[in-house]
Amino acid sequence: MEDTQSTRRRWLGLTAALGAGVTACKRSGPEQAEETGPRLLGKPVSAYGERSPYETDTRALPNTRTPEAASSRTPLQDSCGILTPSSLHYERHHAGVPNIDPARHRLLLHGLVDRPLIFTVDEIRRMPSVSHIHFLECSGNSGGEWGPKTGRDASQSCGLASCSVWTGVPLSSLLHEAGVQKDAKWLICEGADACKMQRSLPLDKAMQDTLVAWGQNGEALRPEQGYPLRLVVPGWEGNISVKWLRRIKVTGQPYMVRDETSHYTDLMPDGTARIFTFVMDAKSLITFPSGGQRLNGPGSYEVTGLAWSGRGRIERVEVSTDLGRSWQNANLQEPRLPMAFTRFRFPWKWDGSAAVLQSRCTDESGYVQPSKEELIAVRGLNSQFHYNGIKPWKVMPDGSVTNADA
Amino acid sequence: MEDTQSTRRRWLGLTAALGAGVTACKRSGPEQAEETGPRLLGKPVSAYGERSPYETDTRALPNTRTPEAASSRTPLQDSCGILTPSSLHYERHHAGVPNIDPARHRLLLHGLVDRPLIFTVDEIRRMPSVSHIHFLECSGNSGGEWGPKTGRDASQSCGLASCSVWTGVPLSSLLHEAGVQKDAKWLICEGADACKMQRSLPLDKAMQDTLVAWGQNGEALRPEQGYPLRLVVPGWEGNISVKWLRRIKVTGQPYMVRDETSHYTDLMPDGTARIFTFVMDAKSLITFPSGGQRLNGPGSYEVTGLAWSGRGRIERVEVSTDLGRSWQNANLQEPRLPMAFTRFRFPWKWDGSAAVLQSRCTDESGYVQPSKEELIAVRGLNSQFHYNGIKPWKVMPDGSVTNADA
Repeated sequence: MEDTQSTRRRWLGLTAALGAGVTACKRSGPEQAEETGPRLLGKPVSAYGERSPYETDTRALPNTRTPEAASSRTPLQDSCGILTPSSLHYERHHAGVPNIDPARHRLLLHGLVDRPLIFTVDEIRRMPSVSHIHFLECSGNSGGEWGPKTGRDASQSCGLASCSVWTGVPLSSLLHEAGVQKDAKWLICEGADACKMQRSLPLDKAMQDTLVAWGQNGEALRPEQGYPLRLVVPGWEGNISVKWLRRIKVTGQPYMVRDETSHYTDLMPDGTARIFTFVMDAKSLITFPSGGQRLNGPGSYEVTGLAWSGRGRIERVEVSTDLGRSWQNANLQEPRLPMAFTRFRFPWKWDGSAAVLQSRCTDESGYVQPSKEELIAVRGLNSQFHYNGIKPWKVMPDGSVTNADA
Repeated sequence: MEDTQSTRRRWLGLTAALGAGVTACKRSGPEQAEETGPRLLGKPVSAYGERSPYETDTRALPNTRTPEAASSRTPLQDSCGILTPSSLHYERHHAGVPNIDPARHRLLLHGLVDRPLIFTVDEIRRMPSVSHIHFLECSGNSGGEWGPKTGRDASQSCGLASCSVWTGVPLSSLLHEAGVQKDAKWLICEGADACKMQRSLPLDKAMQDTLVAWGQNGEALRPEQGYPLRLVVPGWEGNISVKWLRRIKVTGQPYMVRDETSHYTDLMPDGTARIFTFVMDAKSLITFPSGGQRLNGPGSYEVTGLAWSGRGRIERVEVSTDLGRSWQNANLQEPRLPMAFTRFRFPWKWDGSAAVLQSRCTDESGYVQPSKEELIAVRGLNSQFHYNGIKPWKVMPDGSVTNADA
């Protein structure tokens, strides 16, 4: 509970400076609250709950003629805590969401194994399982940030990232059961969508922490997230966490499939291409105040956002409110978990003048999130994937917030 | 990740004994998986996701003529991990679920304070916040277990308990802002439902860790959970986490309101009544295999369940499969968080004969969950609330599972 204590002290330290917030409350006078609240019985208990009709957040949809091979974006600007509601988890499909009957679905494990195996979904669900909180991020997330026309809000800039509790069986358990042969080095993992999406996964990562997941946020996987079975490859680009998982073939080499050759590679300035760039580097994003939001006048605010790294825990998030001249440590919400969103919070007194807010994270490997300029200096401008530069938001004197780098 | 390693080793140790599960897979032959998976494009990306039509879990509804003053139960037998999906969080209402417009809702803080304050929902949402995982449990949960006719499944036995990530403002921040006067000792907290549900909350607990929550599992509170504002009083009986929070009056004494006099007290064998028995004692429940489920023949199974305590972290869960003659430690899923569900898992080889499965937890204060007999010896049989006895499930030779103590 250290963070609670610390937040409380910071807030109290700001009391004298309180502007638009609580001071305004005082002017309202205590009698006003007497008017609220219904006088009639409300709705009875129900079998399955829905959100309030006053809450209308949705995933941002693309303008496309092929919505089956497209993505939708999590409204991170409205997020709280570190988990994404399953209904708002980002989507990226290559052939739409298949309608799979779990009673008929099978997972085949074959190739360089002593005992090829087929598992029913019920069999997977009954095996020893674990539950871990992990982010997933499309490696194409923030692809628009490379150029001059950057995302105007948190969703457009960075909404192909979400975080869930995944429950499933360690893939290592299935591999041990099948008996991996000595020449095995890769797994070819295939989905049951119409395009039979495939990716090559190194055996080492499969044995280390990869899950065959069947649960998400306390219930079954959602259809858009791979129901009834998917891979969860912690910290790696989302595409390799193959959804609707139907087949794993153990091989001696990768298959150089479409989605690791025509897609999901990074063209470098010297004309070579990076391939199998699996790990998602450390990244952070301020979600409030962020593009499209508005501050209600000068005063005290809590700047908040999310940070994550494919290499483990987030160790530090710094916030700058002065165009990067100075940086101060933000508070990090505990527990900080490896390869999971970490929520950061930072007290800020806004004096009403134009300001640029930025966040910069450092992970437990010591990697520091680069600026856009630093990233481009190394990677050039031919890359589409793996953008993790610092995202600035500009607060205007009228309280509006825009993408400062546009 | 210690638990992953440990689970893997245990599972491998069981390979030779595998019964109904994976052995059956082998007989299927690898060609069978080729049949699965659609050949047509699936559904396009969408704005807001829903669960699979094949998933049909619901809250168990009561048989009552007053469903506005009733409860519905979380299907814990189908839970995974430690979080409850918001749509399946248990309900307990005293006057139904009010339909509240957050733009019109206010929270009044008055009484023994220097500055009475009114907060809008937007003001609360913009204050420094924290996010914590906590269980909520109705103190009437498992009330049916006192007698001879106990709950036939996990939901009927124990389904008035759920666990969420709550995001909100420490109540201490609001109290400091208002300036609590020196005679203050209690808070009278009132909801905006039609009955204006009230409870008296000691000031110490309010200052320690109580939240005015507006977020649940990454989105706004659900209407059944108090939208747009509720108290979350960690580890204490659910009724005091007042929903649809509209008013907090700071006082020198409790108000002895209806729901802490006619309800939520415990009549003891000597005729006296316990009152203000806030803390929920440590409790655990096996969710698989549990009543109403069925084992598919002898073999290896993972027994799993949930444990929690209002006094902090769960330190240990033991499982007995032999009518309580011997107990062995279960594996606990990390991170174990204070006053949150903890998932436990235990490998079991079922030989096909009748067996009784029980779990017993110990929290960080050293408190050990009692047997039903131990609980009744102290509390007698006039109590309705605060039942936390060990729950046995009986596995029959045909694989069916029933409430062993019925």
